[in-house]
Amino acid sequence: MSEVEIRTYPIETLQEFSSAVFRHFGVPDEDAALASEVLAKSDLRGIDSHGVARLHTYFDMLELGRINPTPEISIVRETPSTATVDGDNGLGLVVGPKANEIAMEKAAACGSGWVSVSNTNHYGIAGYYVLEAMKRDLIGMSMTNTTKLVAPLWGGERWFGTNPIAMAFPGLEEPAVVVDLATSASAYGKIEIAKRRGEPIPDGWAIDAEGHPTTDPDGMIEGGAQLPLGSTREMGGHKGTCLAAMVDILTCVLSGANWGPLAPPFALRQEVPDRSVGKGIGHFFGAMRIDGFIEPDEFKRQMDDWVRTYRATKPQPGSPGVVVPGDPEREAEAVRATEGIPLVMPVVEELRDISKRTGIAFD
Amino acid sequence: MSEVEIRTYPIETLQEFSSAVFRHFGVPDEDAALASEVLAKSDLRGIDSHGVARLHTYFDMLELGRINPTPEISIVRETPSTATVDGDNGLGLVVGPKANEIAMEKAAACGSGWVSVSNTNHYGIAGYYVLEAMKRDLIGMSMTNTTKLVAPLWGGERWFGTNPIAMAFPGLEEPAVVVDLATSASAYGKIEIAKRRGEPIPDGWAIDAEGHPTTDPDGMIEGGAQLPLGSTREMGGHKGTCLAAMVDILTCVLSGANWGPLAPPFALRQEVPDRSVGKGIGHFFGAMRIDGFIEPDEFKRQMDDWVRTYRATKPQPGSPGVVVPGDPEREAEAVRATEGIPLVMPVVEELRDISKRTGIAFD
Repeated sequence: MSEVEIRTYPIETLQEFSSAVFRHFGVPDEDAALASEVLAKSDLRGIDSHGVARLHTYFDMLELGRINPTPEISIVRETPSTATVDGDNGLGLVVGPKANEIAMEKAAACGSGWVSVSNTNHYGIAGYYVLEAMKRDLIGMSMTNTTKLVAPLWGGERWFGTNPIAMAFPGLEEPAVVVDLATSASAYGKIEIAKRRGEPIPDGWAIDAEGHPTTDPDGMIEGGAQLPLGSTREMGGHKGTCLAAMVDILTCVLSGANWGPLAPPFALRQEVPDRSVGKGIGHFFGAMRIDGFIEPDEFKRQMDDWVRTYRATKPQPGSPGVVVPGDPEREAEAVRATEGIPLVMPVVEELRDISKRTGIAFD
Repeated sequence: MSEVEIRTYPIETLQEFSSAVFRHFGVPDEDAALASEVLAKSDLRGIDSHGVARLHTYFDMLELGRINPTPEISIVRETPSTATVDGDNGLGLVVGPKANEIAMEKAAACGSGWVSVSNTNHYGIAGYYVLEAMKRDLIGMSMTNTTKLVAPLWGGERWFGTNPIAMAFPGLEEPAVVVDLATSASAYGKIEIAKRRGEPIPDGWAIDAEGHPTTDPDGMIEGGAQLPLGSTREMGGHKGTCLAAMVDILTCVLSGANWGPLAPPFALRQEVPDRSVGKGIGHFFGAMRIDGFIEPDEFKRQMDDWVRTYRATKPQPGSPGVVVPGDPEREAEAVRATEGIPLVMPVVEELRDISKRTGIAFD
C-alpha cells in the first residue's frame, strides 16, 4: 500500500467552485448556492464520496442535458401534513432542500410534514436534510433511493440502491445524535478503495456476477452486487433487505418515481434499466415539531442525559468504546472547517478537468 | 437434539383463554378482547415468542399489581398531526392499539398522525399495528423499546432493547409487503433455543458478561448481551446501533418514558434499573394516508409490479431465492388459522399453571 497524495482546499474555495459550475449550466444563483452548500456539508462532515468528488458526475449530467437546470418544482397532491412533489428532473441538491422545506413548513403549520418526491436526482448526504430540520427544533427524517447496487438477501443480482435513512435529535449542552446510514452492509466507496489498494474485501460485503460470495473487489464491481446490512440470513440480512424495501417504497412507489432496479443511472458508465415505471428517482422527507410531543427544553435535557449515560457504557475490551451516532462527522467538521478539505489527486484532476472545460478557475 | 413435544390448539381456544385471564384481573371486557387479539395475531403469524408464550408474564405482572388493569389513557399534548399519550401503566396490548387508533384518526383528519407513548408496557408484535393501519388504506409505522438486551457496537454491556421497527404497504392483487424487524442481529428466542438444544450460537450474535464475543448461549444469557444488527464495525454494527438509538429516542425521549438501559423490566427475573427518568416503557406509532400522496389504486398497482419484479430476482445459487418481506408470516397465518397453533410443552405447562391459579379452564 503506497501513500496517497492529498491536496487540501478551504471549504469556501470548493463551495464557490461548485456554485460557479452549476451557474455555468444556467442553474439560478440561489439554487447554485444551495446545491453547493449541500455538497460542502458532505465534504465538511468527512463523507468524501458525496461531496465535490461527485461534482464531475453532476457536470456530466448537466452537460448532456440529462438534468434540468431550471426546474419548476411543484406539489402534485397534498393534505395539511403530507405532499407529493415533482422535482421536474432538477438537481437533487436543489429539489431535495426545497421538498424538505415543504415538509418543515407543514410541520410548523400542523405538527408534522411528510413529503415524497419523484422526478429528482441524487441529493447528496441524507444527513444534510435532518440537520436543517434540527435548526428549527424539528426532528427530521430523510431517505432516498439510488441506482441499483445491492442484492436482497438470497438474491443473485443488484436490485436495491444503498437507500440511506437519516434522523437527528438535538441536545441542550451535548451534541446532537445524528443517525445517517446506508442500508447496505458496507459503503461502495470502501470497495473501490480496496480495489485501488489491491486488497480483498471482507466476506459478507458482496457477491460476484454469478451470485457467489466474493472477497475480490472486482468481483463486486464487475457486475456483482453489494449485500444488505446483516449480509447473511444467520446474521440478519433479511433485516437489511426489509429496510432497503421500506426506503424504496416510501421514496418511489409513494411518489411515482422509479423503484428498485428501475432507478435511472446517475453516472455515465451505469447501465440503463430496460423499462421505466415513473419519473426519475425518489426522496422522502419528514419533519416533526418537538413541541408537538414535549417541551423542547425537556426533550433536550433528556437527550443530554441520554448521551452522557451512553458515553459511560462499559467499553468492549480491546475496542475504542461506544460512539455516539453523529460524533465522527461532527468531529470531522470541526477540523475541516478550519483546516480545509483533503482531496485525493484523482478528485483534484476531475475538478481541473471541469475547470478546463468551463473556463472556471481552479488549481 | 431430541424431538420436541408439541400440542396444537385452535386459535379461538387460546384467544378466549387469554381474554378470560385478562378479565380475571379486572381488565374490562373490551380491553381484554383487544389484548387477546394482539397476542393471537402473533401466534397466527408464527412469531411464537410474542403470543401466548408471554401470557404467564402478563399474568405475573397483573397478579403483582405492576400493571394497571383499568388505565385511563390520556393525551398529554397534541397538534393536528402529533400527540403524546400517557398509557397510565396499562397493558401495552391495550395502550398500544388505543394510541395507534389516535394516530390513525389524526391521519384521517389531516393526512398523517404520529403518536409517542409513555407509561406503557410490552405491546406484542410491532407488525400488529401496521396491519391495522393497512385496513384503512394507511401506511403505518410502529416501534417500541424493550428491556435492555443489546450492546451498542463496541459496548461491553446491555444498553438497548431489541427495539423493533414495522411498516406495511398494501398491494392490489399481490399480498402486502410487511416489514417487521428487531434492530438486533438475532432474536433472543433463538439464543434460548440453542441453549435448550445444547448447541453453540453463531459468532456475531452475542458477547459475554466481560464483553468478549461468545458462541455459548449461556455466555449471553448469564449477564452478556446481544449484538446490534451488523454485529461488528466491519459488517455495519454501527448501523444497527444507530437504528436502535433512533427507536429508543422516538419511543422514550420524545414521550417521557424510560430510555436505554433504564427501561423497566418486563419479566420477574430481570434486574431493576438503578434509576428512572420517565414513566414505563415507550412506543411510537405513525399513520399516513396513501391518498395524501397518490391515488391508492395507483399505489397498489405499483406495489403489485414491485412484488412481481422482486420475486423475479435471479436467485443466489444454492439459496431458496428472495423472500418478499411479510411472506413467511402470511404463509404461517394461512396454515395456523385452519390447522391451529402448535405450542411446545413448556408453554402448555405455563398456561395450565395459570388455569390452576385462576380457575379458568384450560387443558
